[in-house]
Amino acid sequence: MQWSHDGSAVRIIDQRRLPASYEERELRTVNEVVEAIGTLAVRGAPAIGICAAMGVVAAMSQAENLDATAFESELENVAAAIRFARPTAVNLAWAVDRVLRRARATAGSPADKLAAMRDEATTILDEDRSMCESIGTFGAALLKDGARVLTHCNAGALATGGSGTALAPVYHALKAGRRLSVIASETRPLLQGSRLTAWELMRAGVPVSIIADNMAASLMHNGKIDVCLVGADRIAANGDTANKIGTYSLAVLARYHGLPFYVAAPRSTIDAQTAEGADITIEERDPAEVTSPFGVETAPRGVKAHNPAFDVTPAELITAIITDGGVVRAPYRFRETSSR
Amino acid sequence: MQWSHDGSAVRIIDQRRLPASYEERELRTVNEVVEAIGTLAVRGAPAIGICAAMGVVAAMSQAENLDATAFESELENVAAAIRFARPTAVNLAWAVDRVLRRARATAGSPADKLAAMRDEATTILDEDRSMCESIGTFGAALLKDGARVLTHCNAGALATGGSGTALAPVYHALKAGRRLSVIASETRPLLQGSRLTAWELMRAGVPVSIIADNMAASLMHNGKIDVCLVGADRIAANGDTANKIGTYSLAVLARYHGLPFYVAAPRSTIDAQTAEGADITIEERDPAEVTSPFGVETAPRGVKAHNPAFDVTPAELITAIITDGGVVRAPYRFRETSSR
Repeated sequence: MQWSHDGSAVRIIDQRRLPASYEERELRTVNEVVEAIGTLAVRGAPAIGICAAMGVVAAMSQAENLDATAFESELENVAAAIRFARPTAVNLAWAVDRVLRRARATAGSPADKLAAMRDEATTILDEDRSMCESIGTFGAALLKDGARVLTHCNAGALATGGSGTALAPVYHALKAGRRLSVIASETRPLLQGSRLTAWELMRAGVPVSIIADNMAASLMHNGKIDVCLVGADRIAANGDTANKIGTYSLAVLARYHGLPFYVAAPRSTIDAQTAEGADITIEERDPAEVTSPFGVETAPRGVKAHNPAFDVTPAELITAIITDGGVVRAPYRFRETSSR
Repeated sequence: MQWSHDGSAVRIIDQRRLPASYEERELRTVNEVVEAIGTLAVRGAPAIGICAAMGVVAAMSQAENLDATAFESELENVAAAIRFARPTAVNLAWAVDRVLRRARATAGSPADKLAAMRDEATTILDEDRSMCESIGTFGAALLKDGARVLTHCNAGALATGGSGTALAPVYHALKAGRRLSVIASETRPLLQGSRLTAWELMRAGVPVSIIADNMAASLMHNGKIDVCLVGADRIAANGDTANKIGTYSLAVLARYHGLPFYVAAPRSTIDAQTAEGADITIEERDPAEVTSPFGVETAPRGVKAHNPAFDVTPAELITAIITDGGVVRAPYRFRETSSR
């Protein structure tokens, strides 16, 4: 994620096209930003936050010449639209609000407010890069030489402004000379594991193999997985963690097979105002993602299908949460911090 | 599954085309039979056995005019080829051997032997139908009114000569007036759950919904599943059960959530000569089934993929095994019986 050359748009990799084709796009309008986040062209909690913050600035660039009142009213509209592009990722509202607060705290013309917001969005991007570095450093200490790491969905460079959350420890451990390999569960329905995680790891030269989601238990039983490492979309105050559908399943399987199960996420993903997992709103997506994967109709017409985008892993199944502030273990009692 | 009008071919529903199109095919040659079984045009342990037995007869129909020695040598070749069309399903070798034994026990001309083999194959088909009835009757007693039944893959009418194994109790309980609904896990990589189970249940008017395999844990946690009911491809003497990949995963999840986990299978699926699950050969299929689902390339080219077709559920996770001889509970100690 970066600014376009003239700074008036957010430059993204269109993740819907990977791995078949690599395409960059520029988002200039509020609709383009909302659509990119809503259709998963940009996905991953940190990346969504960055895109949202930069997206508010991009959309408001076109409003620079409005008078102060009209500018502020437009800003409220833009922020509201982008904030609700998806319901589950806490980073989305958090990043939008941060840019909004900065605008409110800035006296002066719309141009002054815009400059301040641009600075704030750039800071969010920079902080995210350094957050990934920190998670990588803390998490790498948990990965032994030779470890075979199961990950789910994509919590890598594509999901953040830096080297990722769940994948950052892998990249760091490899840089430190340890030999690791990754098993990526494909992550139905949208296959972020086989499409994105496999793509970015191969591109980085990391040994990776993919499995259908339902094969993880079999590999665990056969001693082919040493550790599970996943990202998070929202972490409640008690440590309950919402992440891509299928994460909870892997956590139960890891517990049954005696394997450590780590969640890696920046502190901005911790939502201390949400007491526990049951309070997290789970997005239910279009059943067609299940019945017609990639445009191929594989289920009988008219069949009912469930499609929750996330599930909640209870804290008791999480060995540790790797944050940019360090590794946290149970009992988890997260409180509002200055980093949010 | 049935004989063609002239009795010289096996008439099957081509399950590779469902649910997009309903096509019947006739298998006449050994290559057609091996190809149909190997590419899953016919699948499901009982159906494979029936198709194999009838397939031996169909292929040998063309050899009726050979002299006795040439006929017997051709029979050995045909039987060997069909027996190894797939490695895991015990019914395949069992059914082929049964037809072969009948031929050997029959004195007389090739025509006499052929007639005896045809009688034996028809008996296998008839026995299978009545086996389904028995499993249905015994299993229905375990399904309470209102039960929401999770099943995996397809162990229904399409997988047998009758009403199925895992689905037979569902059909029977419905006939008895109980209200049931079925959740079918899609069953990657080949989606037998969404393609076949959903199709046959909708066709029969049974309420059914589908989920991606990784959603089962979430539904269990949310109280939307009451019981798991699956088929089997091979059951070892100690009750360990090989079935479609993902079955073991569901069994672990069922245990964690305190749900009953039932296996339904005819006694012919019990392989008392195999002491335990670890002794069962697991077929590893083409990685392209994982990397390019239904011809759509969804993983980066050249990525490594695992594709075990089955996994083994240890007996300790199985609440009961519903056979055509009754419901069996742990400890399982299966011995060679006259039915095999």
